[in-house]
Amino acid sequence: MDQRTPDLPLYEALAGRVVALVDDGVLRVGMRAPSVRAFAAQHGVSLTTALQAYRLLEDRGVLAARPKSGFYVTSRTHTRRPPPAASQPPQRATQVSVSNPVFSVLAYATDPSYAPLGCAVPSAGLLAAERLDRHLARCARVHGRNYNVYADPHGDAELRGQISERALRLGHAVPPDGVLISNGCTEALNIALSVTTKPGDTVAIESPTYFGLLQVLEAHGLRALELPTDPTSGIDVAALDKALGARRVAACLLASSFSNPLGYRTDDARKAAITKVLTRHGVPLIEDDIYGDISFGADRPRPFAAISPKADIILCSSFSKTIAPGYRIGWLAANRRHDQILAAKFALSLSGAALPQKAMADFLTSGGYDAHLRRIRKLFADNIDRMRRTVDRSFPRDTRMTDPRGGFVLWLELPHGFDADALYARAIRERICFVPGSLFTASGGYRNCLRLSCSHDWSARIERSVERLGELADELLQ
Amino acid sequence: MDQRTPDLPLYEALAGRVVALVDDGVLRVGMRAPSVRAFAAQHGVSLTTALQAYRLLEDRGVLAARPKSGFYVTSRTHTRRPPPAASQPPQRATQVSVSNPVFSVLAYATDPSYAPLGCAVPSAGLLAAERLDRHLARCARVHGRNYNVYADPHGDAELRGQISERALRLGHAVPPDGVLISNGCTEALNIALSVTTKPGDTVAIESPTYFGLLQVLEAHGLRALELPTDPTSGIDVAALDKALGARRVAACLLASSFSNPLGYRTDDARKAAITKVLTRHGVPLIEDDIYGDISFGADRPRPFAAISPKADIILCSSFSKTIAPGYRIGWLAANRRHDQILAAKFALSLSGAALPQKAMADFLTSGGYDAHLRRIRKLFADNIDRMRRTVDRSFPRDTRMTDPRGGFVLWLELPHGFDADALYARAIRERICFVPGSLFTASGGYRNCLRLSCSHDWSARIERSVERLGELADELLQ
Repeated sequence: MDQRTPDLPLYEALAGRVVALVDDGVLRVGMRAPSVRAFAAQHGVSLTTALQAYRLLEDRGVLAARPKSGFYVTSRTHTRRPPPAASQPPQRATQVSVSNPVFSVLAYATDPSYAPLGCAVPSAGLLAAERLDRHLARCARVHGRNYNVYADPHGDAELRGQISERALRLGHAVPPDGVLISNGCTEALNIALSVTTKPGDTVAIESPTYFGLLQVLEAHGLRALELPTDPTSGIDVAALDKALGARRVAACLLASSFSNPLGYRTDDARKAAITKVLTRHGVPLIEDDIYGDISFGADRPRPFAAISPKADIILCSSFSKTIAPGYRIGWLAANRRHDQILAAKFALSLSGAALPQKAMADFLTSGGYDAHLRRIRKLFADNIDRMRRTVDRSFPRDTRMTDPRGGFVLWLELPHGFDADALYARAIRERICFVPGSLFTASGGYRNCLRLSCSHDWSARIERSVERLGELADELLQ
Repeated sequence: MDQRTPDLPLYEALAGRVVALVDDGVLRVGMRAPSVRAFAAQHGVSLTTALQAYRLLEDRGVLAARPKSGFYVTSRTHTRRPPPAASQPPQRATQVSVSNPVFSVLAYATDPSYAPLGCAVPSAGLLAAERLDRHLARCARVHGRNYNVYADPHGDAELRGQISERALRLGHAVPPDGVLISNGCTEALNIALSVTTKPGDTVAIESPTYFGLLQVLEAHGLRALELPTDPTSGIDVAALDKALGARRVAACLLASSFSNPLGYRTDDARKAAITKVLTRHGVPLIEDDIYGDISFGADRPRPFAAISPKADIILCSSFSKTIAPGYRIGWLAANRRHDQILAAKFALSLSGAALPQKAMADFLTSGGYDAHLRRIRKLFADNIDRMRRTVDRSFPRDTRMTDPRGGFVLWLELPHGFDADALYARAIRERICFVPGSLFTASGGYRNCLRLSCSHDWSARIERSVERLGELADELLQ
């Protein structure tokens, strides 16, 4: 089954093949790429299309044009900066207690007077906010009265239909009645945890993991069992199997793709292996697919639920990272637990706001979402590339960094002993915000790590801020 | 301190005084009321105003005009139908498990092909939906992009300012920063319970109580201790004191005013006494003020938090019953636990949808809320009066019913042994929906009771449906 996004432009698909050749080592740093003419002939496309592909690769820093000579493979940053090693969190469950430091970081992360390397929230201008707002204005004018009721707790039927249709394209067969709309992905995760766990239970998670998720675990009184996680390929299946054999785990909570903060992509075979292990141990999977649509590759990865349709999986997602954080529209789909999640949603907030859901349904029906996704995928991929190049030339030697396959965050690992909390204190004084690594664990690691968000339009201010962080890190290492 | 709603029209205030005379027995059934001219002179108002007051009393069924003779006090329904006796729930805590029957009732209650005596949700046309929708349309056009971010978890600052200002009018001093916006009152209650209880704990509640609240308790794994409750005056303070002395109770959850389903009003002195008992036992109070603005009296009752500003109280409320159920905008205020509720809100859903909050703020700022409240108070009071008269002439002898002081639900108690579940089954076959009493308790009582909702525009269909329910009840008693 071809999982390529059906409407990816030809030149982007071609550029993707060149990147694959570079990644596989067929095209190596410094090598001259085939001429545009040869490339066009080889792939049976027009000169214009071939040139578009090369320009894109130039934008992304994969190729560089030399006057009168042609295109050459540049020294890609990842060749100099290896990814961090796989994490090795403690093999015990930890009661989660993270909220206080998180709140202090969030206060700076949302303050526009600080350079925005903290929050993983795209600036509104980058997303589809304005078009969606026009839909909302129209909905309020046209449909207002009909929607001013407690909505069906399932959520807007048309919106569920749209979500179901998009899921089907990924091979995830979930009928509209199997979709439940939530107040953003955070409520979705709360609902999923409330039907699978009770306080004191242990939940297995990747490590490092998104601090907001740790806050949710803390609010539920849960213990976190952090799993060894490779920044390139994800969860270690054998370690997962061993961990689940050693203790009772109520649920396993993983990113479907492009985890925050590591940004890795787990291939289908490994996803199937993970689900198999979970099924054998009778542990439900809660998967968070919020970044799945922001894939830098030629295809959009499939969630676990699409790969293992019979397993006990609750999929959680939202439009907050791709269309509109301010609308708070997320959803769940749970093949086996639909009645449970519906009851939990009802007890938690009855139903969601009706008109924003209707506006989102109209937006999706109007058909511009895929074109919008192509635009922001390229935009975030470019941002990540620029951030990586800036880190590469500014940060201390021996700094490692991830090479995210999607999303918009970058994870840096500095030499052992480096104190990212100290860097954070200095950076805040200079009005630069990022998130120190210690917030991404419940068990006290990652003090030498940090997360940079690349979710805003690239700017001289952002570039200078990253450079300055590098200088400060250098000073701290002296 | 004069708690009269400041902008209540003069004729309504005058009508309220006449009702007080009737209620106190000074004006008795069949007596001739003072002539319009005498009444005007007595109160120093114009003839027009006096006549407006009498017309209002006529609308509400308190007075009846006899041609060429004047106005007479009618036989008010409550003279023939006493309220139910105070409830006597079991003196033990019960693990709550109610969701399945509730969902089955809700499916019918929201189906417009059934006579709408089930859901306590006003029809959109009765509320301020259209004006609010216009505000939302404008907000989406004008402010869209600025609001398409994860909002401050506290919620829209302007909206919090408006809520703070209105609270102050009731003597409840809560600054805008002390208000936390939630996804409706249901999420507010979830947040309040999450910071005061843990699974297995016991929560003291009034009895009978709103089934949605029981569902929330169930979702939190809580036990319900149901308190003896008088349909006219509310919680029995001595019984509360005794109950709290006998076991550990984690929180007490009460309606501030016009409880669903009993509709009673607790006077300020009793509220103070209740809070005092709770404080002595170290039990926090969660108060649900969702119906407080729908007062039939001349004033709007004060919440517990206004009367006992130093006690450990979390106030929960929303605009769902007065402006717009579909917008899902509620709020909390907790003098002592603000940081706790903020952290809980953040973990539960990050923040609410931004534009609907902004639209609500604009609506409140534009100043029509009080005029709107006057209109719907009269409307719901009239609905309740008509419903009571219809029940009075249609239901079996010995049927008791409440005389609500606000809100829009009526509670009926039929003779012991009557089976309201059986009545429900028959009524559903005839496309009439109501809620049987058994749903209002976790401990298995109220099988001979039922709740009728008076939240829709009165119509011949509603009247016929109530009459038919009376006939069916008669048949069941044969």
